[in-house]
Amino acid sequence: MDKLGDIGEDALIERLVALVPTGESVEGPGDDCAVVYEGGESLQLLKTDALVEGVHFLREADAEQVGWKAVARVVSDFAAMGGEPERFLVTVALPNSMEIGWIEAFYRGMGRCFETFGAVLAGGETCRVPEGSAAVISIAATGKVGRGNLVTRSGGKVGDELWVTGELGGSSSGKHLTFLPRIAEGRWLAEHFKPSAMMDLSDGVARDLPRLGKASGCGYEIDGETIPMTEGCGIDQALGDGEDFELMFAISDSTGLEDAWEERFPGLKLTKIGRFVALGEGDELRGGWDHFGK
Amino acid sequence: MDKLGDIGEDALIERLVALVPTGESVEGPGDDCAVVYEGGESLQLLKTDALVEGVHFLREADAEQVGWKAVARVVSDFAAMGGEPERFLVTVALPNSMEIGWIEAFYRGMGRCFETFGAVLAGGETCRVPEGSAAVISIAATGKVGRGNLVTRSGGKVGDELWVTGELGGSSSGKHLTFLPRIAEGRWLAEHFKPSAMMDLSDGVARDLPRLGKASGCGYEIDGETIPMTEGCGIDQALGDGEDFELMFAISDSTGLEDAWEERFPGLKLTKIGRFVALGEGDELRGGWDHFGK
Repeated sequence: MDKLGDIGEDALIERLVALVPTGESVEGPGDDCAVVYEGGESLQLLKTDALVEGVHFLREADAEQVGWKAVARVVSDFAAMGGEPERFLVTVALPNSMEIGWIEAFYRGMGRCFETFGAVLAGGETCRVPEGSAAVISIAATGKVGRGNLVTRSGGKVGDELWVTGELGGSSSGKHLTFLPRIAEGRWLAEHFKPSAMMDLSDGVARDLPRLGKASGCGYEIDGETIPMTEGCGIDQALGDGEDFELMFAISDSTGLEDAWEERFPGLKLTKIGRFVALGEGDELRGGWDHFGK
Repeated sequence: MDKLGDIGEDALIERLVALVPTGESVEGPGDDCAVVYEGGESLQLLKTDALVEGVHFLREADAEQVGWKAVARVVSDFAAMGGEPERFLVTVALPNSMEIGWIEAFYRGMGRCFETFGAVLAGGETCRVPEGSAAVISIAATGKVGRGNLVTRSGGKVGDELWVTGELGGSSSGKHLTFLPRIAEGRWLAEHFKPSAMMDLSDGVARDLPRLGKASGCGYEIDGETIPMTEGCGIDQALGDGEDFELMFAISDSTGLEDAWEERFPGLKLTKIGRFVALGEGDELRGGWDHFGK
């Protein structure tokens, strides 16, 4: 019988989601968060994310930084929709051999991130995994976004410019544990320059831009020479490393954007990296610059 | 350094929760769900729960039943507050060796439970655990309860009668995989006889009644001879087996309750099993009938 290792994650999710009711008032999967359409001025956002020991973190890692990252990854998904986080549910499945000091430091790190972004812990669950099993940390959260500020992945149009915040690449040298989710930036963009589509760069431009294009029904062109690279990184790292947690967005009219950005977020780069083109045209990114189909 | 195995779950949770902001608009931990107090006629309920392979289920188990149980456990927590489930976020952390057929059957089981209780899948996450690690399934959910219908664990008063729905004990012979959460019953009780305190029986009366008493600041007396026992079970099993997922509630005035219940839920037992007394008085349950301190 087929094993999970035989198929990719996207194919698996597609098969599984077809087996359960998903409801008309909920948007997603396929976006950074699920969006709940109900009455009221603000929409609820829902997100869940998981960290697995040995896959996403090592027990030797700084537990407080891992805690920060666990929450910040989810916060970044709210930023990607123009929203903000509210309440978190944290499930930790741990072996008995786990040091209490580790998990306490992990919670301190989560707490710092909650405080930084005005979120709270609303509930949780602790349970044991058998000895020898990897620890699994699952984070679910609710957030909100003003009805007029919601930005999804799917609104991009042919001709829209593609922009990214910050500098890309080199996350594994430490940035992936200490990054600051772009909440203020995402909200400001949604309020003042309403991107047509937006997402956070968790897997790198090379993997994430094809997703943004697919969701918007567009192809894309990249201006390789403009990609903002972290000092010491080449183009391959900038596009392929992932875990930048910067925002990538499409915008139809960027008049005044750079000046307003510079005034509001001095010192944080904002760079035009390309544009949406007709589906089937343009470039083809396949996991990194090396596979860039030009 | 201290390991997790050295301290109990309650002590662990207390230490961890002290390390993070929890917010004034959120009630919990310590109840079946977290309650979000905001404007509007209905309150949002938040809950997370986890199932670990080798701890909560075996890979040899009927995957569809495990899926039903995974969702039904959470639904039961909403029932315990007089509420109902709305949207689920499901995280599955699985080894590559897991059969796709297993996880598909698991989703079908979840889907049946979603449909039965009018809930939907809003989002999720699939990730891999290293080979040899236990699969971990984490379920987070939002629910709602009418503002006037909310029942917590903490409102019980000295003199309130203690009641339970259904029959207790013997869950491991199969009931723990197929039980029907008492959503309609919990809501009906909240609307017509407003219990002062309520919870679902996940760990058995012997463990759960002390929790209900503690939350309400009361002691308790049990009428051992009235405990409704599943056929073939003795009092020890009825109080100690756990995973009954029946409702246990306190009520100050039960006039007319039994007749109205019989009419609304014919065939489902409703039994008075004792009463709340002053803190420090009454009985003392310690994990089962054997340890019943009389």
